[in-house]
Amino acid sequence: MKLSAHRYGKSRVRVLKVLRDGDLHTIKELSARVLLEGEFDRSFTAADNADVVATDTMKNTINVLAHDHLGAENEPFARRVSEHFLGRYVQISRVRVTLDERVWTRLNHPHSFTHSDVAQPFTRVIADADTSSDSGAGAGAGAGRPRPGRLRQESGVRNLVILKSTGSGFEGFHRDDLTTLPETSDRILASAVRATWRWADDREPASYNAANRAIVDAMLVPFAERYSPSVQATLFEMAGAALDVCPEITRVKLVMPNLHCLPIDLRQFGRTNDRTLFVPTDEPHGYIEATVSR
Amino acid sequence: MKLSAHRYGKSRVRVLKVLRDGDLHTIKELSARVLLEGEFDRSFTAADNADVVATDTMKNTINVLAHDHLGAENEPFARRVSEHFLGRYVQISRVRVTLDERVWTRLNHPHSFTHSDVAQPFTRVIADADTSSDSGAGAGAGAGRPRPGRLRQESGVRNLVILKSTGSGFEGFHRDDLTTLPETSDRILASAVRATWRWADDREPASYNAANRAIVDAMLVPFAERYSPSVQATLFEMAGAALDVCPEITRVKLVMPNLHCLPIDLRQFGRTNDRTLFVPTDEPHGYIEATVSR
Amino acid sequence: MKLSAHRYGKSRVRVLKVLRDGDLHTIKELSARVLLEGEFDRSFTAADNADVVATDTMKNTINVLAHDHLGAENEPFARRVSEHFLGRYVQISRVRVTLDERVWTRLNHPHSFTHSDVAQPFTRVIADADTSSDSGAGAGAGAGRPRPGRLRQESGVRNLVILKSTGSGFEGFHRDDLTTLPETSDRILASAVRATWRWADDREPASYNAANRAIVDAMLVPFAERYSPSVQATLFEMAGAALDVCPEITRVKLVMPNLHCLPIDLRQFGRTNDRTLFVPTDEPHGYIEATVSR
Amino acid sequence: MKLSAHRYGKSRVRVLKVLRDGDLHTIKELSARVLLEGEFDRSFTAADNADVVATDTMKNTINVLAHDHLGAENEPFARRVSEHFLGRYVQISRVRVTLDERVWTRLNHPHSFTHSDVAQPFTRVIADADTSSDSGAGAGAGAGRPRPGRLRQESGVRNLVILKSTGSGFEGFHRDDLTTLPETSDRILASAVRATWRWADDREPASYNAANRAIVDAMLVPFAERYSPSVQATLFEMAGAALDVCPEITRVKLVMPNLHCLPIDLRQFGRTNDRTLFVPTDEPHGYIEATVSR
Repeated sequence: MKLSAHRYGKSRVRVLKVLRDGDLHTIKELSARVLLEGEFDRSFTAADNADVVATDTMKNTINVLAHDHLGAENEPFARRVSEHFLGRYVQISRVRVTLDERVWTRLNHPHSFTHSDVAQPFTRVIADADTSSDSGAGAGAGAGRPRPGRLRQESGVRNLVILKSTGSGFEGFHRDDLTTLPETSDRILASAVRATWRWADDREPASYNAANRAIVDAMLVPFAERYSPSVQATLFEMAGAALDVCPEITRVKLVMPNLHCLPIDLRQFGRTNDRTLFVPTDEPHGYIEATVSR
Repeated sequence: MKLSAHRYGKSRVRVLKVLRDGDLHTIKELSARVLLEGEFDRSFTAADNADVVATDTMKNTINVLAHDHLGAENEPFARRVSEHFLGRYVQISRVRVTLDERVWTRLNHPHSFTHSDVAQPFTRVIADADTSSDSGAGAGAGAGRPRPGRLRQESGVRNLVILKSTGSGFEGFHRDDLTTLPETSDRILASAVRATWRWADDREPASYNAANRAIVDAMLVPFAERYSPSVQATLFEMAGAALDVCPEITRVKLVMPNLHCLPIDLRQFGRTNDRTLFVPTDEPHGYIEATVSR
Repeated sequence: MKLSAHRYGKSRVRVLKVLRDGDLHTIKELSARVLLEGEFDRSFTAADNADVVATDTMKNTINVLAHDHLGAENEPFARRVSEHFLGRYVQISRVRVTLDERVWTRLNHPHSFTHSDVAQPFTRVIADADTSSDSGAGAGAGAGRPRPGRLRQESGVRNLVILKSTGSGFEGFHRDDLTTLPETSDRILASAVRATWRWADDREPASYNAANRAIVDAMLVPFAERYSPSVQATLFEMAGAALDVCPEITRVKLVMPNLHCLPIDLRQFGRTNDRTLFVPTDEPHGYIEATVSR
Repeated sequence: MKLSAHRYGKSRVRVLKVLRDGDLHTIKELSARVLLEGEFDRSFTAADNADVVATDTMKNTINVLAHDHLGAENEPFARRVSEHFLGRYVQISRVRVTLDERVWTRLNHPHSFTHSDVAQPFTRVIADADTSSDSGAGAGAGAGRPRPGRLRQESGVRNLVILKSTGSGFEGFHRDDLTTLPETSDRILASAVRATWRWADDREPASYNAANRAIVDAMLVPFAERYSPSVQATLFEMAGAALDVCPEITRVKLVMPNLHCLPIDLRQFGRTNDRTLFVPTDEPHGYIEATVSR
């Protein structure tokens, strides 16, 4: 038996931090996941836990770091968490930190809020130890800490639910004996988009929050305003709009299920249903995914 | 064996209607449930389906009525559905219609929308046949239709998620040997409210949509602005605000889980966590429910 | 404003108890909910918490009672919890205790288990204080405790998923201009049954666990072996079988969604689909509910 | 803008097939997902759908192939679906087929069944076109079909929920100032395992169903019978048992969340809770993942 890959960590570590500016509060609620890769083979193969950082310790770490460092933006905090683990434990070669935010919006009041948004922002860091350095001796040793090496960071949004009630079609596709779908130049297009954008290594936006908002807003423009000849073509335009609006990102990945709204046939009841009444369906659904780079 | 109660119907009948005003579209998406009570005993006890309206027919009915009558407001449509069933089938003594809406909000564009709201509006009608009339002979007979009798209608919202980060406490409660909860005059209060309000029999709001919005907005005012000495007291104030703002409702029922946000103890790590960092929890949770009437 | 109804309590209090018989372990995992009714008006209307039993105390209580009393059967434990609340707090007029079990089945080993069953057993007690007695003075007073009065107990199972691939039809139902469903004497019948049976006030089964198992097994016999002319008729036979097999229950309520499996039309592809291939659907679905008593 | 990766397909295509052996029925219910990669760039970048196989056609294809070929074992059917797509459409370079089964177990009756198992089997094929061949000209052309090239197949099970109430500990792990977890040689270990095993390219089991069952059974033996010094070590033993029992698999990947059951502190209530009462928790939870090969 050979251990060919492994990682471990802690999931669903929830924290809610009250950021205070005098009487004005801001709420930051996150669910964090930290996964570690590194020299943990002996915990699997030899029941030797000596180098294992307990996942309970990982939870404590997120709590303490959130207390000390979590602010209005998630991206720096995710990096901070990754740097802590790489800096403290020489046995770690890679850290993956994912932060899912539950957004609380102010209720026109200094300390009252509503969570009203089905779309969920997230950020993710994959940080590798700098193995080029002749780094320190023992786990947790202060002196010879491995310095963080390559770091990739992505942000995005899950479950961005959008629909256009006209201005969408699907025509000219391949037909054979298993094809029954009619061509149409007027259908409903609905999706629950998952979008992930990667931040450039060498530049940072002035504000991640502002950049993330601008990216989502930009993607919605071609969705709303351009005729959609397919989910594919609309996806490509949406990704392009994101890249156009934010120079600090290098690529965008979009996952767009096609949540079909099917016209209901009412002819047997003496009604002509002229693109008025549809049945929204969850299954089966189309699935389109692409990554667009500069 | 005695059949002591029974009802049946169709659940999760989904429809999406495009309401057109020239090029300006509005989306109405509903999931409907219709439950019937009446003289259906023999279908249970004698395998006699003669009076059974097939649930498939109920789905067709919702589709046809939605095509013909569904407009910007759900409440009249729910009544229309209930009247159809009572008017057409003498074997029905009570109809219960529930409509859950998935709200689509305009994307600053005539035909593009987002579903962004975690709160879900609903309306519900319970309509009884008028049994006082010596109504018609056979099922579906056109002539002697039973006229609708008593009708109760409610509207409401599920999953209205709210939080206040201060201005909330819980003190002076009963203590005994099983009590360990400390008293506090400053805690986080979070809930996912389900609110249901009953419409008066003898009056209608000028607009259900406007009234529903006003009721939700009104409930949020005491939640945001008043010190909360308990979920119970805040619930009562919220219900009162709803009754105050809308004369056409006669009572409000609120279900308010207390979704505890617990302070994280960081003393062992040399930090004083002064109401800054909390862990939000789903279970266990408090549960408070009350109905407030005029 | 008038407070016309209210109750409160604690939900999703989870406990897992290891029952030890030497080296042989048995696992009992429950999620408990306790709801209280009584003289709690002033907590709503006057911000007076003096009689409020904190829901945190209710969680502590479940924990302590589970430690002291939880055994192999849930029904006595549910009663014990209800009696504790009625016996200790004079302000309570009614207690409702619901226990949902997550069943752990032995893996042919004294202390290893699997949770493999989608069906979920539950029990529920509604216990009223005996208001006829001139019972004690103050909350928590030891002397003049209100004695438990009327008590109703039910047990049941949720999500008992069953299907028969033939031996089921639906014919002879009402037809009108909105009916398109063809009659059939051979369809698939599938459901996810929720069954609730009420225990008699004056007698107890020798073993609740054995009785609950016998009731479920008995209900499956007519489902499996008898032709089903409708969900209604099959439901009635299943309830009857439960009442026949267990003299200690007085009535059975069954909720049986009709989870339609629709034949797939393959004629356009040159295939005759002779009751071979179906698409299982979740929505819309039929809903049948009835209570059958002795 | 550059399209750097893309794929598309159809998800949640549900089919239920009745396999008949005289009066004895067997139920096979699957939810299928098919994802295609290939020369579909122009659908994204040029709104040219000419080579796009509509996802509706993919659904029809699954239906027709299920009618013609789906039998008692899922693995051959998954391959058959992948071969169909590669054989028919030259524009496809890779097909990924995933089949999730909902298992129906016989109710001691020829045509009545229950779905009672929380664990869910699945199989997955990734099939590449043989690009070495000078294959055919046009999409769908019968003559010059690309022959299937490399094919990897995996099977597995999701949500295999297991627990051991003793015989598990966690000791000797790294400690620093953020570590508060006590060492223990007696804790509860609970998980909801996802296991995936890869089939060898050059050999097939006599029966996939029997092999899959044997693999699951084998993994449960070390879980039940061996002391667990960590999730990691137990995972490694479970994977080893799978490889030992089935020579036709080459590697096993296990994902094992550590679903913590925490002892409840009852000292403040005068009770010593000696590993008897625990609170099962879902969040946060540990996460351990590894792949073990021969």
